Amino acid sequence: MSNRYRAQDLKQFAADLFASTGLARERADVMAETFLQADLMGFTTHGLHRVASNLKWLESGASRLQGEPNVLSDRGNCFNWDADFLPGPWVVNQAIDQALERIGEQGVVTATIRRSQHIACLAAYLPKIVERNCVGILTCSTPAEETVSPQGCKTPLFSANPIAFCAPAGDYPLLFDISMSVTAGGYVARAEREGKKLPEQYLKDRDGNLSDDPAAFTNGGSILPVGGADHGYKGAALSAMLEVLSMGLGGYGRADSVAGDDEANSVFLQIIDPKAFGSEQKFLRQTAALTHLWESCEPEDGGSVRVPGKRAWNLRSDQLENGVSLYPTITADLQALAQNYGKAFPHPVS
Amino acid sequence: MSNRYRAQDLKQFAADLFASTGLARERADVMAETFLQADLMGFTTHGLHRVASNLKWLESGASRLQGEPNVLSDRGNCFNWDADFLPGPWVVNQAIDQALERIGEQGVVTATIRRSQHIACLAAYLPKIVERNCVGILTCSTPAEETVSPQGCKTPLFSANPIAFCAPAGDYPLLFDISMSVTAGGYVARAEREGKKLPEQYLKDRDGNLSDDPAAFTNGGSILPVGGADHGYKGAALSAMLEVLSMGLGGYGRADSVAGDDEANSVFLQIIDPKAFGSEQKFLRQTAALTHLWESCEPEDGGSVRVPGKRAWNLRSDQLENGVSLYPTITADLQALAQNYGKAFPHPVS
Repeated sequence: MSNRYRAQDLKQFAADLFASTGLARERADVMAETFLQADLMGFTTHGLHRVASNLKWLESGASRLQGEPNVLSDRGNCFNWDADFLPGPWVVNQAIDQALERIGEQGVVTATIRRSQHIACLAAYLPKIVERNCVGILTCSTPAEETVSPQGCKTPLFSANPIAFCAPAGDYPLLFDISMSVTAGGYVARAEREGKKLPEQYLKDRDGNLSDDPAAFTNGGSILPVGGADHGYKGAALSAMLEVLSMGLGGYGRADSVAGDDEANSVFLQIIDPKAFGSEQKFLRQTAALTHLWESCEPEDGGSVRVPGKRAWNLRSDQLENGVSLYPTITADLQALAQNYGKAFPHPVS
Repeated sequence: MSNRYRAQDLKQFAADLFASTGLARERADVMAETFLQADLMGFTTHGLHRVASNLKWLESGASRLQGEPNVLSDRGNCFNWDADFLPGPWVVNQAIDQALERIGEQGVVTATIRRSQHIACLAAYLPKIVERNCVGILTCSTPAEETVSPQGCKTPLFSANPIAFCAPAGDYPLLFDISMSVTAGGYVARAEREGKKLPEQYLKDRDGNLSDDPAAFTNGGSILPVGGADHGYKGAALSAMLEVLSMGLGGYGRADSVAGDDEANSVFLQIIDPKAFGSEQKFLRQTAALTHLWESCEPEDGGSVRVPGKRAWNLRSDQLENGVSLYPTITADLQALAQNYGKAFPHPVS
């Protein structure tokens, strides 16, 4: 039996689950679409795998079922919202939709959202930006999270601080989603569950010693910033920049008392219309040249040329056409949800 | 004898040199001020040390003595200029001045400049942004430069791609200026001159083997992106992003035939007024909390807490008050310039 499922079926299934919590159908659809987009591009850890936690938050009240974001400022080309724990995938899409409505007139639109419930996979929000031939920058930080220590220190200070970026280019967009830490907390946790060491010394233990042992992190240690032990000052600087853009401009974050189990994000979004700077054609000429030059690079022994966005975009096309391939564990989890909620799980494509 | 010189005297000296090439006094002053700011904050490799090369460019015509940038687009909150080789320090300051004039109304102003003659130290442009209590992002790339190879490849593709950032905070701003490569071409060249190895394997040789030998770079090798051999895919992704913002939006770069000795930059500038998102006080509360938490981090053994901006800002205050301390080699170079140009070199402060 195939493990591929029609994208539309998976979206419908997830949307039905979200709607069953009392969330408006329209919002349930937006959330389901976001998680689907993550799986379509291969970001499977933050795709439909996250439906379960989002259902729990909707049911417990950790995610707000109803209401609109509170508009703290709106200058047309920039705005700041307090989401007050509205579901992240819905509220971020609302901000993107508003920015895209304005982008033709404004050229550059910048938005911040404070207290958005967890926004999951940042890359998942980018396809509709790049399909409008715009550049997108999306980053988020987590006021309650301190996992990454600055270089020279043993105290964790920053959250993982992912940044996702897209730009239209040639046959596929430049597109990536990377954190400002050398590895993700999720990978460390998985390695610990599986009794494995990390591939490199990605951690400091509580005494500041470099370590590849996941237990060093869970026992009061920290994760290294991008650049690691050698040039982690660069990753720490970038992390600080992203926290200033998200928490600083949003006006909520490190200065506030936040419960340790609060997974809410501070979000910074910027959409840029290349046409505001010159012709679209001239922009695409440059970005296509960059991806072409990159593809023409000679791989080193054992290396491979990986232009960020190519694999994800091609996988997305393939899975939209031929069905979405789910990890067996994710399929099993979703089937269990189907049973709990009395919904039919989709049939795989034959 | 002290090696400290009054900031005003050094600026006057450098401005006199620039003016002697036929550059308008007002422009000469702006250029001198920019190089001075770099030295004031301790970015000595790209401060007054660069007066000599900039004089040569003005004299040879590599830098354009007169004229204005060609405005390719202007939407108020964003604009794109073709500098056509106007001196980098002057034209970038013009863009910043225009952005700051508009920032109160626009909230976020974004600018690109193509074919700016080399802009030297990015951090040097930030003080006047942060003194207006604004956030500044400045990045540049070099269309003629291919020195940094993407992870998995042995072909150099990117330029060093520095990014500088400032944000007002507490007693000093967050402020940094870092490249997206593990080390700078200048450091590799210096190590080669001095017959030294690099501290780590920052390079690939032409065959793609990791190396700490500067000769590996000059013999057709490349520099690793931020993240190095382990997670250089992150630095490469960020490098691509910065090239899209500078060369892509500017509409000039990788797609164009550029002479190999052309040091001109493609520039991306963004100034953000926190007041467009909320109150200034709420912004400063977050950024001051971040710097305070960072300062409170416990150093690891042999490590030290270094909040980016603290040292530079304090050094700037000290040197503005007590004189600028120049490296002996830079003093000697400037004294030689004084003799060649028939100008008096300033007396050190007693």
